Amino acid sequence: MNNLAPLDNVRVVLSHTSHPGNIGGAARAMKTMGLSNLYLVNPKSFPDIDAERRAAGAGDILNKAQVCGNLGEALSGTVFAAAITARRRDLSHEAFNARQGALNLISYATQNQVAIVFGTEISGLTNEEVSKCQIVVHIPADPNYSSLNLASAVQVLAYELRMALVEANSSGPSVSPAAPVTLDDVELLLIHLERVATRSGFLDPAEPKRLMQRMRRMVARTRLEREELNILRGILSACEKQIQKQV
Amino acid sequence: MNNLAPLDNVRVVLSHTSHPGNIGGAARAMKTMGLSNLYLVNPKSFPDIDAERRAAGAGDILNKAQVCGNLGEALSGTVFAAAITARRRDLSHEAFNARQGALNLISYATQNQVAIVFGTEISGLTNEEVSKCQIVVHIPADPNYSSLNLASAVQVLAYELRMALVEANSSGPSVSPAAPVTLDDVELLLIHLERVATRSGFLDPAEPKRLMQRMRRMVARTRLEREELNILRGILSACEKQIQKQV
Repeated sequence: MNNLAPLDNVRVVLSHTSHPGNIGGAARAMKTMGLSNLYLVNPKSFPDIDAERRAAGAGDILNKAQVCGNLGEALSGTVFAAAITARRRDLSHEAFNARQGALNLISYATQNQVAIVFGTEISGLTNEEVSKCQIVVHIPADPNYSSLNLASAVQVLAYELRMALVEANSSGPSVSPAAPVTLDDVELLLIHLERVATRSGFLDPAEPKRLMQRMRRMVARTRLEREELNILRGILSACEKQIQKQV
Repeated sequence: MNNLAPLDNVRVVLSHTSHPGNIGGAARAMKTMGLSNLYLVNPKSFPDIDAERRAAGAGDILNKAQVCGNLGEALSGTVFAAAITARRRDLSHEAFNARQGALNLISYATQNQVAIVFGTEISGLTNEEVSKCQIVVHIPADPNYSSLNLASAVQVLAYELRMALVEANSSGPSVSPAAPVTLDDVELLLIHLERVATRSGFLDPAEPKRLMQRMRRMVARTRLEREELNILRGILSACEKQIQKQV
């Protein structure tokens, strides 16, 4: 999927992270969505065994992570940076939710380096850090409890960045249905069902009501597969045989 | 924000979770997005200090979590359940990405109980567990590394559920589906179908193959309405009576 190339232009910047486990969790979250550039501004402890443990299969991202002395260094070379916050801030920055923010970031990332910037676990980004970014992106959380785990926040943003590209690359779901049956086969099934419903005594031909109409609608909705149709016909035939024996 | 009330009808079901820390992480992820109903199917260790630690401020969700012996119990009373997988599966279930899946779930959750179901950390959901759900929802991850942390996967789905409401509240109302049946009723239908298939001589209990599994998937896809279920049960009962007469 070369269409996902802009993800290579996205940096994930974690500023002053307290718990190395969260760095590992963030690396894992990044990798699941195809991001790979991790920048750490003054992490409390890195490298760290806790980071490696939580990274699971994303150790490669930790290995090539850039450790920086300040945010300016981590943003050097980028043209656009988003400060991620769990809540809206009363700031003069343009504010977007995660989805809108991702679309914004991707529009720049097709040609240039961009960054998403996350603050410490407890207090988030400082105002000075936010001021180094072009936009503020908030994850729409419950106002009563907006405290996303750091790795979870990275996961949501990484997911939205990937989705921004996936959605751009394909309009409509790309699920390919299993081989469906022909409409003629469906008609034969309905005739068979009606016959068994009648012979079993359930359906009164003199007063059919809307019964078969309902069955028809149900079957249409189901979009039967060949194997399913065969099973249904098999059960109907077996029932019919038992009923006929008796007559 | 009363418009977010459907979130109260969403159950998060974690099946056979190995690491109690992930249960705590999932609870925290839920709470940030306004979800509160946690169901645990045979957790390896619960309650557990690791769960409490990772839950941070979401201990209330752990305290009222329901521990169940099997998935059927956790789904009892729901009308719609989504199996969450990190990858697409080769199944006849309708498959949606997380965004489409959330929209589907919310359309039911306005009136009824629904569930999102997550499997174990290592192997995910079993086929049998998936077969108890109506749709499969995959988080579009990098195919080279699709291993989301369990709490991160819960975070993404919880986020999309909240977003589905946030976005819906800013646009028109969505169409609510016709009165669906409960999953308990669907189970009874499948038991009835199996009995008739056996008594009619079609299904050999000594060699059942994947027959009922296929029927289960078909029924899941159909999303039966009450009236349809009644007709199907009626035909099955009528056939059964005819077969019994004869024996």
